[in-house]
Amino acid sequence: MSDIITVKAPVNIAVIKYWGKRDEDLILPLNDSVSATLDTSIMCAKTSVCARPEFKENEIWLNGKKETFQSPRLQNCLKEIKSRAAAENSVNEDFLQWKVRVCSENNFPTAAGLASSAAGYACLVTALAKLYKVKSDVSSIARLGSGSACRSVYGGFVRWHAGTNPDGTDSVASQIEGSAHWPEMHALILVVGDTKKKTSSTTGMRISTQTSELLKHRIKYCVPQRTDEIIQAIKQKDFPKFAEVTMKDSNQFHAVCLDSYPPFVYMTDVSHLIVDLIHKYNELSGSTKVAYTFDAGPNACLYLLEEEVPQVLSFIRHVFPSSNPELFVTGLKTNEVTLNPELKNICEPQAKDLIKYVIHTKVGEGPTEVTDGSHLLNDAGIPKIE
Amino acid sequence: MSDIITVKAPVNIAVIKYWGKRDEDLILPLNDSVSATLDTSIMCAKTSVCARPEFKENEIWLNGKKETFQSPRLQNCLKEIKSRAAAENSVNEDFLQWKVRVCSENNFPTAAGLASSAAGYACLVTALAKLYKVKSDVSSIARLGSGSACRSVYGGFVRWHAGTNPDGTDSVASQIEGSAHWPEMHALILVVGDTKKKTSSTTGMRISTQTSELLKHRIKYCVPQRTDEIIQAIKQKDFPKFAEVTMKDSNQFHAVCLDSYPPFVYMTDVSHLIVDLIHKYNELSGSTKVAYTFDAGPNACLYLLEEEVPQVLSFIRHVFPSSNPELFVTGLKTNEVTLNPELKNICEPQAKDLIKYVIHTKVGEGPTEVTDGSHLLNDAGIPKIE
Repeated sequence: MSDIITVKAPVNIAVIKYWGKRDEDLILPLNDSVSATLDTSIMCAKTSVCARPEFKENEIWLNGKKETFQSPRLQNCLKEIKSRAAAENSVNEDFLQWKVRVCSENNFPTAAGLASSAAGYACLVTALAKLYKVKSDVSSIARLGSGSACRSVYGGFVRWHAGTNPDGTDSVASQIEGSAHWPEMHALILVVGDTKKKTSSTTGMRISTQTSELLKHRIKYCVPQRTDEIIQAIKQKDFPKFAEVTMKDSNQFHAVCLDSYPPFVYMTDVSHLIVDLIHKYNELSGSTKVAYTFDAGPNACLYLLEEEVPQVLSFIRHVFPSSNPELFVTGLKTNEVTLNPELKNICEPQAKDLIKYVIHTKVGEGPTEVTDGSHLLNDAGIPKIE
Repeated sequence: MSDIITVKAPVNIAVIKYWGKRDEDLILPLNDSVSATLDTSIMCAKTSVCARPEFKENEIWLNGKKETFQSPRLQNCLKEIKSRAAAENSVNEDFLQWKVRVCSENNFPTAAGLASSAAGYACLVTALAKLYKVKSDVSSIARLGSGSACRSVYGGFVRWHAGTNPDGTDSVASQIEGSAHWPEMHALILVVGDTKKKTSSTTGMRISTQTSELLKHRIKYCVPQRTDEIIQAIKQKDFPKFAEVTMKDSNQFHAVCLDSYPPFVYMTDVSHLIVDLIHKYNELSGSTKVAYTFDAGPNACLYLLEEEVPQVLSFIRHVFPSSNPELFVTGLKTNEVTLNPELKNICEPQAKDLIKYVIHTKVGEGPTEVTDGSHLLNDAGIPKIE
C-alpha cells in the first residue's frame, strides 16, 4: 500500500459573507459566516502528500508548477498539524521530522475567482491530517491557510464561528446540516468575463475594517440576526427565506466595499444586470425561486432548487447568448425547457459572451480521501504532471 | 413696464447627500444635506410667470411643451406662495384670485440627470415669490416641489436642515458661505452615456428607507459628523478635507442603494473607473486635488480648485477620447496643458465617447431676476417658443 495520501476537497460559496478580520495573522474574522459546500464531482481541489526520510526539503507543486514552501500561511498549516499530531501522539517522533512533498491542483480555472484557495487549503490540511493521523477538528488549521477554507472542511451547510478567544481556538467551522438534508439545493455559477485588476480580498478587508462606518453596523447588528435567520431557513428548508437573506447579505457586503475608502468594487454592469434579472424572474414567478450571491469578483452564484434549474438555464441562455452554446453549461446535466414567453419579455438578448460559461452543481460532501490510486505524486514521490 | 416676472435659478450638486424622506408628502428629509450652487451663466433654469384677470386657468409650459398644472407638487408650491402672500398682505385680494401662466426651460438637457428639477422648482418658486411680493424665505416652499430645490434658492455653499417639526416649517435651507468666499471652487460635470432605465429618486428613497439597515446607521451616526466636518472645511477653505468628506459621502449614498432591497445602482462601470482614476490622480499628486460625487445617475461631478482644471481636463481627455474633441468641453474656458507623463501612465485611453461631454463651471449665485426683458412669455402672455 502506498504511503501517499490523496484527498479531494470542495469549494464553498458563502450566503452570509465573511468580510473583515479581527486578527490578520491568525485570520480571525469580525463576524460569523455561513456557506454551502459544493459537490466535489463538479468542482474540487485535489492534493497528494507524503513524508519520507530521504526527502531533503519540503516541496510543493500547485497546478503543475513548483512553488515556494516559504509562504507563512503554508508553513503555519504544516506546523499546526504537526503540533496537533504531537499532542495526540498519533505518529512517532521520527515521522514528524521527515520532510513532506505536496502536489495540488484544481479542476477549475484558478483565475475564475471561484474560491480556489478555500478548496486548496481545506484539501491540504485534510490530507496532512490524514498523513499525521490527526483525529480532532482541523477547521481552525485550514483557517490559517485561507479564512474561508475552514468552511470547506465540512459538507452541506456550514457555519464559521467568529469566536472570541484571542488565540483563535474557538474560531472554527461546524456543520449546520449535511448535504443529504436538502439535496434539492442546486447552484449555477455564472462566470462573467473580467479583465479589470481587482483589489485582493486581504487588502479589501483591511481597507473596509479601517474605514467603513457601515461595516461596524453590519458586524454588530445585521450579521447576528441574519445568521440566526438563515440557519433556521436551512433547517426548515424554507427556500424563499434562505434566498432573501442570501441576496441581502451579498448586497450588503458589496455596499461595504463601496463605503470603504478608497472604495473598491467587485461587481460589474453585467453583475448588476444579473441582479436585476433575478429580481424580475422572482417577481414574475410570484415567489422567490432564485437567489444570487457575489464574492470578491463579478461572477454570480445562483442558489435554486433543482426543479427550477431548467427554466432558469433557458432564461440565462436567452438573455446571455453564447458564441459556443454547446459548451455554455458544464457540470450536472439537465433537460432545458422552452422559455416561458413572459420570462422572455423581461429582457432583450444582450451582446454575446457577457457570461463566459455556467457551472451547474449542487450542495455536496466535505473532503474525501481518494482511494482509487489516482495520486498526483508517483511512487517515487515526484509529481506526475511534470 | 411688463407685468411678467422672469427668473434664472441655478442647479446645485450635493456634497452631503439627501437620501430618504421622513414625510413623503411634505418632502421632509431624514438627514441634513450640504451642496454647492453652480453658476447660472453655465447651467440654469429660466422661468417666466404672470397673473392676469383674463386668464381662464392656470397653465404651464416646460421646455416648450404644455404640461398639466394638476401635479400635486406644482399645486402645493402655488398654494403656499399665495398663502404666504396673504399672510404678509403683500398683494391685494383680487390679484391672488387671478390665474397664472408659467413658462420654464433649462439651458441643459433635462435627461442628463443634472438636477434639473432642483433648478426648475427653485426658479418657479422664486419667480412666484416675486410676482406675489413674498419677502420671507421660500426655501421650504421650493422643497415642496423637489426636495433638493430648496438648496438652489441660495448661492454659494448651502445647508438644508432636516428639521424636526412634523409640519416641516424648520426644514429649510440656509447659506453657509456665499460664492465670493471661495471663488476658486470649480466643478467639472462628466456626462456619461446611459441607456439603462433607472430607479427614480422618489422610488429609490422609499425602498432604502423601508429596507436598508445601513441607511439607519448613516442617518444617525455618519451624516451629523460629516455635516459638521464639511461646514468647517468650507469655512476654512480646506480643500483636501472638503474633498475627502465629499467622496466618502457619495460612496456611502451609493452603498445604501446597493444595501436596499431590491437593490438598485446608479453608477456604471464607467462611473467606477472615474472613481479609481481620481484616487490615482490624487495619490500621484501627493495630496487630494480632486473630489468626485455622483447623484442618482452615472454622471460624475468633480469639485476642484481653478488651478487644477487644466491638468485634470487634459487627463480626462487622455483617458476618455472623444470623437468630437472640439465640442468635448463646454462652459468656462481654460487653457489646457500637456499632460504630465506620470499621469498619462495611470491609465490607457479607453474606448471613444464613454464620456459624452464635460461641463466646466464654478460655484455661483442663487436665483436672480432677469431684467433685460428676455421673458419666455410675450406681452400677450403666450410662450414665445411656440
